[in-house]
Amino acid sequence: MESAAARRTRRRKTPTRAAPPPRAPFILRKLATMNVLAEDGLALIEENAERILAETGMEFHGDPEILEIFAGAGCDVDGARVRFAPGFCRRTIQATAPRVFTQHARNPANSVQIGGDATVLCPSWGPPFVRDMDRGRRYAEYADFVQLVKLHQTLPWLHHSGGVVCEPVDLPANKRHLDMLYAHIRWSDRAFMGAFIGAERAGHAIDMARILFGAEYVAQNPVLYCVSNTNAPLVMDSHMSGALKTYARAGQPVACTPWVLTGAMSPCTVAGTLAQVLAEALATLSLVQLVAPGAPCLMGSFASTMSMKSGAPTFGTPEAGLMVLAAGQLARRLGVPLHTVGTLSASKLPDAQSQQEAAWGLLMSMFAGANVINHATGWLEGGLVTGFEKTMLDHDLCGKVARFFDGIDLSENAQAMAAIAATGPGQHFLGSEHTQANFMDALFRPLTPDDNSFEQWEAEGGLDAATQANALWKAQLEGYADPGLDPAIDAALQDYIARRKAEQPDMAYF
Amino acid sequence: MESAAARRTRRRKTPTRAAPPPRAPFILRKLATMNVLAEDGLALIEENAERILAETGMEFHGDPEILEIFAGAGCDVDGARVRFAPGFCRRTIQATAPRVFTQHARNPANSVQIGGDATVLCPSWGPPFVRDMDRGRRYAEYADFVQLVKLHQTLPWLHHSGGVVCEPVDLPANKRHLDMLYAHIRWSDRAFMGAFIGAERAGHAIDMARILFGAEYVAQNPVLYCVSNTNAPLVMDSHMSGALKTYARAGQPVACTPWVLTGAMSPCTVAGTLAQVLAEALATLSLVQLVAPGAPCLMGSFASTMSMKSGAPTFGTPEAGLMVLAAGQLARRLGVPLHTVGTLSASKLPDAQSQQEAAWGLLMSMFAGANVINHATGWLEGGLVTGFEKTMLDHDLCGKVARFFDGIDLSENAQAMAAIAATGPGQHFLGSEHTQANFMDALFRPLTPDDNSFEQWEAEGGLDAATQANALWKAQLEGYADPGLDPAIDAALQDYIARRKAEQPDMAYF
Repeated sequence: MESAAARRTRRRKTPTRAAPPPRAPFILRKLATMNVLAEDGLALIEENAERILAETGMEFHGDPEILEIFAGAGCDVDGARVRFAPGFCRRTIQATAPRVFTQHARNPANSVQIGGDATVLCPSWGPPFVRDMDRGRRYAEYADFVQLVKLHQTLPWLHHSGGVVCEPVDLPANKRHLDMLYAHIRWSDRAFMGAFIGAERAGHAIDMARILFGAEYVAQNPVLYCVSNTNAPLVMDSHMSGALKTYARAGQPVACTPWVLTGAMSPCTVAGTLAQVLAEALATLSLVQLVAPGAPCLMGSFASTMSMKSGAPTFGTPEAGLMVLAAGQLARRLGVPLHTVGTLSASKLPDAQSQQEAAWGLLMSMFAGANVINHATGWLEGGLVTGFEKTMLDHDLCGKVARFFDGIDLSENAQAMAAIAATGPGQHFLGSEHTQANFMDALFRPLTPDDNSFEQWEAEGGLDAATQANALWKAQLEGYADPGLDPAIDAALQDYIARRKAEQPDMAYF
Repeated sequence: MESAAARRTRRRKTPTRAAPPPRAPFILRKLATMNVLAEDGLALIEENAERILAETGMEFHGDPEILEIFAGAGCDVDGARVRFAPGFCRRTIQATAPRVFTQHARNPANSVQIGGDATVLCPSWGPPFVRDMDRGRRYAEYADFVQLVKLHQTLPWLHHSGGVVCEPVDLPANKRHLDMLYAHIRWSDRAFMGAFIGAERAGHAIDMARILFGAEYVAQNPVLYCVSNTNAPLVMDSHMSGALKTYARAGQPVACTPWVLTGAMSPCTVAGTLAQVLAEALATLSLVQLVAPGAPCLMGSFASTMSMKSGAPTFGTPEAGLMVLAAGQLARRLGVPLHTVGTLSASKLPDAQSQQEAAWGLLMSMFAGANVINHATGWLEGGLVTGFEKTMLDHDLCGKVARFFDGIDLSENAQAMAAIAATGPGQHFLGSEHTQANFMDALFRPLTPDDNSFEQWEAEGGLDAATQANALWKAQLEGYADPGLDPAIDAALQDYIARRKAEQPDMAYF
């Protein structure tokens, strides 16, 4: 139940959102990326990755077609193990992979550029639990999923509707991808991601995209997005490779994303992890290009760290920052966009830890020049929980980085030389004509921070940031506007889903 | 009173601190700074600053000697207003200001390099209140001051004992600087700051430094540090200029730090604020060099933003980040070290807001290549409060940036190529020889984050980060080790303080 204090906050905050800030469909970075490795360091990591691919190689489990594809391309195939001649993967990728492409949304104003100086921020992906301050931590249900899709549709500084914004465990595990896709299509008009486990579900996503966009349009344009994880170290299984091949052949983007927990799934050092991540990315990206030359793809990097004391995953760490920045440099040298992760946290609550880790993670990925940042909102407990309050706190970070990477306005108006001369020593600028003309847009205004005086803050209930964010996400949802959907398309989608669901019995687990 | 949950946490956390991590006296950055302005942008800001100095000029209130000094150097003096020929200040500074120097601590292992690639992190400065979770928010007293000095002395990732870590309002305003200086000297063996308001108090700080280090040593070596703020826009008063001259003549470092609230004390734009900040820094730095050619000095920048809705100061904002990064570039071109600010927050509590703003602020100042970062721990409520729990949370950020700016180890051990080859696809690295040999030091371990599973965290009380930090600062204080002080020096200091105190009646307020 909403507390009296929360109600007060909501009332107080509501006017802020009466005129929502203008929305950019993605960030176009005007600032340079940050480099953490010099030429010799980059060459060393690249050389080590090639050595790993040539000497150890990578295994592809349960998918004989892939082994044939690699053998046909001249690779050394031994059982499930594929070894690659030095330079083979890089040449294969660079020959045909696009440097930049557009993922189209059903509302063209929401289409996103992927690659170059563009960054696209996406919601949390994958958590089986949700948390909010009213109902606490609980298994995620489809109602939560729909609410999260709607919430993100209202958020100005997010760019993408995402994929598994939470895992709706009240639906059969083998069918819920259909309901999730439907929710993105029906309740959001932003770009969204496809089902990512197995060729069959990927095919469903493509079918549904064809119903929405038309088959011809889908054949010509990226309209979905697949995250394809390796099983580090150096394995890809058929669930992932099946989806990878299906999306690639349909001309849909695949983010080849080694997921490692440094110290468990890769060496406990940054340089060792980077070489392994690059090796896995090279092998799987070359697979995309062999399967479908020219298919859009991204090098992914999701290199987390762990507590070497307890083995628990850790986030917002110095090493994770170094790894994503180096991955950005490696992706730019390879010539493909970078997919990575955002506001990750191991915290259980939307507390101080959660935002120290979130700010660290998102800033590092932005400085790395990441082109797609998954998990830019909501992630708690190392990915077990999507938090409603944390979504609002993280969303402010998304707005801040967008404004920051817009750089410094050097126009005559921004220089304000006349205002400085007119104001003069010891006076103030509050009443200056220049301030009056610029105060509405001059400084970025996030939604959650409480900048009031202590006395006013105390009089309004003395609420912490999480409690204020609780009122804010509800107010956002109250302001949700249904983007609508052509009834014929809606009916066709529902019919398609019903038929797919009827084809097989329900399964509780994947 | 300490709760049962807090006691449990403290017990659980205590082993972490049994073997404190090795301490570096300052950060030596191995990564490049981040640039937000290109050459033409930097030249534009510099040109605008020179125009401000030539056309509007700066006023020096209540200090006729300064007007004489500038007039003698050929500047245009009109009442309190001084106008500077284009290039005069820059030439004056560049002729004699050192690029790098050392501030010595009484324990030589704690001496800090100021300038070049070094960064020195200092505690909170100035708050009249303190806050902890046991006693809440309250006026700061001398007992809090001593506790904060002791706490910082135990923190491995802080480098400096600071100055007014809180304002002990239970002591007479005109005498408390003596007690504060004594606390730094007695309870810490790190470098500390001098009294910064007025020539008389600055003189006391220098006298006490002479008792501690010997007069000859102080004449030859920087052992104090003065932050000298302007009254923006374009004014310096005699309280600040008096201290500035006293420290400069004693060869002690002065950080000439325009403090602006963008939109009130400077134009509401980044480019306008930067030109004004640079103008004020150039004028006051040239004063340092005219008073005492070759005296160590820093360009300071403390450019905050404000809510254009309420007028309240705001922190962790995009514009503040852009301003500190540009200030870093401007300081490097000028050839003096940069002094700036760290983990600032407007939050009232050590909550999510406080750490989103803190992480943003500290990272931006680090990327700016700042050489001294004041307020790197504890600041809440826009500087009204030093928080004990926030000190611990911020301190982790200090450790993280230190490890991050150490860059990527590219040694053969860090490359871990043999470990990758020996482990092979689908296996794990937990038992690998390489992991066993490296796990103790491979990954940085901050003190506050809770990385436990949800179940373990819940069983241990389900505490948020602030509550865990509450137990941590108490455990740190329990581990405080008195660095000792030569009894003869101690007696001489106490005698000096007693004599100074006897010279004038107590004053409640400054």
